[in-house]
Amino acid sequence: MEQVKPEITAVLKEKRKNREVRFMFKVNENYLKLPGSYLFSTIGKKVAAYQAANPDRQIIRLGIGDVTQPLAPAIIDSLHKAVDEMSHAETFRGYAPDLGYEFLRSAIARNDYQDRGADIAEDEIFVSDGAKSDSGNIQEIFSLDNKIAVCDPVYPVYVDSNVMAGRTGSYDARTQTWSDVIYMPCTADNGFSPEIPKETPDLIYLCFPNNPTGATITKDQLQVWVDYANRVGAVIIYDAAYEAYISEEHVPHTIFECQGARTCAIELKSFSKNAGFTGVRLSYTVIPKDLKCGDTALHSLWARRHGTKYNGAPYIIQRAGEAVYSPEGKEQLKEQVAYYMNNARVIYEGLQEAGYTVSGGVNAPYIWLKTPAGMSSWEFFDYLLENANVVGTPGSGFGPSGEGYFRLTAFGSYENTVTALERIKKL
Amino acid sequence: MEQVKPEITAVLKEKRKNREVRFMFKVNENYLKLPGSYLFSTIGKKVAAYQAANPDRQIIRLGIGDVTQPLAPAIIDSLHKAVDEMSHAETFRGYAPDLGYEFLRSAIARNDYQDRGADIAEDEIFVSDGAKSDSGNIQEIFSLDNKIAVCDPVYPVYVDSNVMAGRTGSYDARTQTWSDVIYMPCTADNGFSPEIPKETPDLIYLCFPNNPTGATITKDQLQVWVDYANRVGAVIIYDAAYEAYISEEHVPHTIFECQGARTCAIELKSFSKNAGFTGVRLSYTVIPKDLKCGDTALHSLWARRHGTKYNGAPYIIQRAGEAVYSPEGKEQLKEQVAYYMNNARVIYEGLQEAGYTVSGGVNAPYIWLKTPAGMSSWEFFDYLLENANVVGTPGSGFGPSGEGYFRLTAFGSYENTVTALERIKKL
Repeated sequence: MEQVKPEITAVLKEKRKNREVRFMFKVNENYLKLPGSYLFSTIGKKVAAYQAANPDRQIIRLGIGDVTQPLAPAIIDSLHKAVDEMSHAETFRGYAPDLGYEFLRSAIARNDYQDRGADIAEDEIFVSDGAKSDSGNIQEIFSLDNKIAVCDPVYPVYVDSNVMAGRTGSYDARTQTWSDVIYMPCTADNGFSPEIPKETPDLIYLCFPNNPTGATITKDQLQVWVDYANRVGAVIIYDAAYEAYISEEHVPHTIFECQGARTCAIELKSFSKNAGFTGVRLSYTVIPKDLKCGDTALHSLWARRHGTKYNGAPYIIQRAGEAVYSPEGKEQLKEQVAYYMNNARVIYEGLQEAGYTVSGGVNAPYIWLKTPAGMSSWEFFDYLLENANVVGTPGSGFGPSGEGYFRLTAFGSYENTVTALERIKKL
Repeated sequence: MEQVKPEITAVLKEKRKNREVRFMFKVNENYLKLPGSYLFSTIGKKVAAYQAANPDRQIIRLGIGDVTQPLAPAIIDSLHKAVDEMSHAETFRGYAPDLGYEFLRSAIARNDYQDRGADIAEDEIFVSDGAKSDSGNIQEIFSLDNKIAVCDPVYPVYVDSNVMAGRTGSYDARTQTWSDVIYMPCTADNGFSPEIPKETPDLIYLCFPNNPTGATITKDQLQVWVDYANRVGAVIIYDAAYEAYISEEHVPHTIFECQGARTCAIELKSFSKNAGFTGVRLSYTVIPKDLKCGDTALHSLWARRHGTKYNGAPYIIQRAGEAVYSPEGKEQLKEQVAYYMNNARVIYEGLQEAGYTVSGGVNAPYIWLKTPAGMSSWEFFDYLLENANVVGTPGSGFGPSGEGYFRLTAFGSYENTVTALERIKKL
């Protein structure tokens, strides 16, 4: 490449800055409102600094929600088989159907819905590359005038994607809240379960089993939300990414177990945690055809978005998703989930023994603990890192009501989890 | 699931319609402005109807731009190897880095840029799941006030994604144009190469080698666009998806061969056509750090979008991408591209022999032909289907200036391509 003459660039930059050039593209200013996303980078820096200063210490990471167990054999087999298909012209697959292959959509509809008595058809399922993508993109099919309600603490993507779209008003750095967002505090007082907000929202983000608190909602409690949404004309965006970790009977596996959810709910599901697909990338979103604003079905809008801005999940990955529902796959993944849930038990019971106030961990891979002795979330982070060499996530990183709390995840190895808890118990 | 009582749903629907419920979510009304996307579905219906009426005819499809050759052996090997890594805890990979694995980004930077003398660093490359996703999403980092310019005919995603965002004004069904879009006709008169528009745009979408016309631009011609964009403060979104098909010396492989492109251009690249990844899903976008509006680097905005609404391409797919740049991969893919380009030659020369006015096909897998005897694009579609049993794509489906033209693709098998041309020559 011929080099750009530095003086040209400099002159141009100056002109642009002074707006002397007649036209100039502009950026989406909403992006500039976003406060820095420093949670995990701050954690990374603190851990790196501590490790550098203490090279002999073995640090155990129970912070980020990433899995550690390898893919189950049934999934590995299906991946190899699909790769082989791609090596022969007769079985090669090009562009996938926009909304997902029929073999996967029907397996999902049957296993995750119809077998549970939930009335969802295969053409109401949209396969995609991740619940993060879908939970970030779903707001796009709604009006910019719509007002969102979120739990506090909360998975940051729900709010941030609405900030980027311009739906959240202005940010108050002191309270760490947005002027046009309805916050629903989830605290010890309400058992980390949100209450119906005073102001009526248009979109309600709910995630159960919850990230970060690990709290759950009973079917009766969720029915109250569904009835409310139908009454006020709101849409519930229900993130069920941790559904596979439910162990108790009265906790719903899908919002479509509730009566009337077909007219008010969208459900997001991920393969990341039930099948260890964090690096494989597969998820799906359910939009019932009965969910409408006037005559407009949200199903058609989302189909149009997929058709315009997405080209389907990879064929071989969709085959891996199919294997999740095979008899061998189910059996192997039940074991994998049990492995992580055993870690959750180790953490939960270990913390209790050590005298901590702790919740979550029974129907979720996340354990939520109250920091001891009035420490702030970050103070406890430092305390745990320095004295037990264990890394967790400060609750305040998920929202103001997370202050004074701390998240540990069950996704480490069993050995590391046991060691971490032994260290914590000795503190 | 307990059934929703039908009378409740009916009452609720009626209330919503009449806005008797106090609040009601609203949809993104911009979506409703989009005219139906019927091109490929109309083609599908016509072909199905013809086949049903003529079950003995062997129809050859040279319409859609999907590849047919299997993945190259080097890619298959790398996929199997990566799948095996995912089956052991020691080599298992969870969440990928948001912007792509270093092994892939460095291979891209070296092979596609630095080896060509283009000054692009590996951290200016964003790996993603497809150029369709990126070309649809990229508009999001720009202001809604920005005005776009597109070629006519054009790949529909550029315009449709801007319609969905509310950037295009109103649609005129008669002229098939949007009031706030600057159209740059690409016709036989200008060699299917756009001219600098009279009205100054903020964003300029260019695709070379072009879909659908197969036209190219010389490096000198592209330099004119880069200079223009820098002068008026516009951004060029350069879609180089068909770069691997360039056979002529003076045609640039990347816009970053041009002087000054680092301050005005974003480049979209796909693995779909150079490596047959239409069903594998991998692509990348290049945003140089020098591309700024005032002090705001578009690089940071796109990084923020990736970080918030995307979770990286699958590990095994990124390993497949890496294999594209291995010595064996390069050799095998050169052969694959040559296979398709030989088809392009067969189509181009066959049509010429048959007396058609034809362009494209030399640096691109698309052949663009003028319909004979003043037929409309759709009339010629029917004529070709009924008399030669060959399916192509009507040029009018890509925009008003495509009327009277027709696209054939080189992505079929050699045997089918030869047969199709024999039939066309006999017409």
